[in-house]
Amino acid sequence: MSRADDIRAAALELFTSHGYGATTMADIGAAVGIRGPSLYKHVASKQDLLVQIMTGTMQNLLALHRAAIDTTNDPTERLRRATEAHVRYHARHRLEAFVGNREIRSLEEPHRSDVLAIRAQYEAGFRDLINTGIAAGRFTVTSARMASYAILDLGMGVAVWFREDGELTEDVVAWDYGEFALRIVGAVT
Amino acid sequence: MSRADDIRAAALELFTSHGYGATTMADIGAAVGIRGPSLYKHVASKQDLLVQIMTGTMQNLLALHRAAIDTTNDPTERLRRATEAHVRYHARHRLEAFVGNREIRSLEEPHRSDVLAIRAQYEAGFRDLINTGIAAGRFTVTSARMASYAILDLGMGVAVWFREDGELTEDVVAWDYGEFALRIVGAVT
Repeated sequence: MSRADDIRAAALELFTSHGYGATTMADIGAAVGIRGPSLYKHVASKQDLLVQIMTGTMQNLLALHRAAIDTTNDPTERLRRATEAHVRYHARHRLEAFVGNREIRSLEEPHRSDVLAIRAQYEAGFRDLINTGIAAGRFTVTSARMASYAILDLGMGVAVWFREDGELTEDVVAWDYGEFALRIVGAVT
Repeated sequence: MSRADDIRAAALELFTSHGYGATTMADIGAAVGIRGPSLYKHVASKQDLLVQIMTGTMQNLLALHRAAIDTTNDPTERLRRATEAHVRYHARHRLEAFVGNREIRSLEEPHRSDVLAIRAQYEAGFRDLINTGIAAGRFTVTSARMASYAILDLGMGVAVWFREDGELTEDVVAWDYGEFALRIVGAVT
């Protein structure tokens, strides 16, 4: 990892454990062993670190989503794979998900709007998949929007409770939650 | 509301907007217009406020859960009503849910263990409902534990996105999410 990566990782840990508001640049510097002004050679500000973390998280999720749905044209399999990708990302990037949900209020403009825009795009992706399935007579839901929220919420939950050393492996969680998503939309398989 | 209630409400707002770590007793005092030592006549410490908020939230959820499942013996209706109660609570108490999820790390012992114990009890309630439905041949899931996590996650999600002035009313969300819970467990109705 580069020095900038180290700093971002330390910031992520501190934002998670103490919150963005209670973390100082000095805390971040101390965590990576860089004192005083040297830290600013690598990163502009605490806000900049938060922006990098939150923008990076949403861009990664969006890229994984697109890669997942590009693997098939079947509406049911698309939703399953998009959900599996969503769940796997949240199982692997729990701190990013935690900070992403908790610190949206800590982002300054225009970054807050930027992150919310990528998030809206990501959510719309799931809604589109569901609407396509409904149009094809494969899914039955009263509200595509609510079903998409429900499926997205599953991922956030995984980020909270998943543990690498837990009884439930990432594979098992991804497959079961992929199935839950299909059940939520009443998929005819 | 009593003075203590005012203080708790102010603390909840501040913990939500700035995080527990970045909030001081002076901030809380300023929000309710009580200066200096007078505040301590009403509340022992910032930690005490967090304990009251988090313990109260979990106890309320548990009481609502019990009231909901006491209204019927049918396994499917029990799960539906427990989910509706869960979703309605999270739609109405978004700040409590937000702080409850975000600040578990900020609780000192033994309070952290206490809150985690009530939470475990609440989660076990859903798992029991699902296991009862499986035993009665009404539900089909590969893991009752994972299905209970998925259903609980739906509530947390609602606390994040629900708005009173939004297009989706609390009733609509509760009913739809109750239906999603039944779909997740593959309920035969």
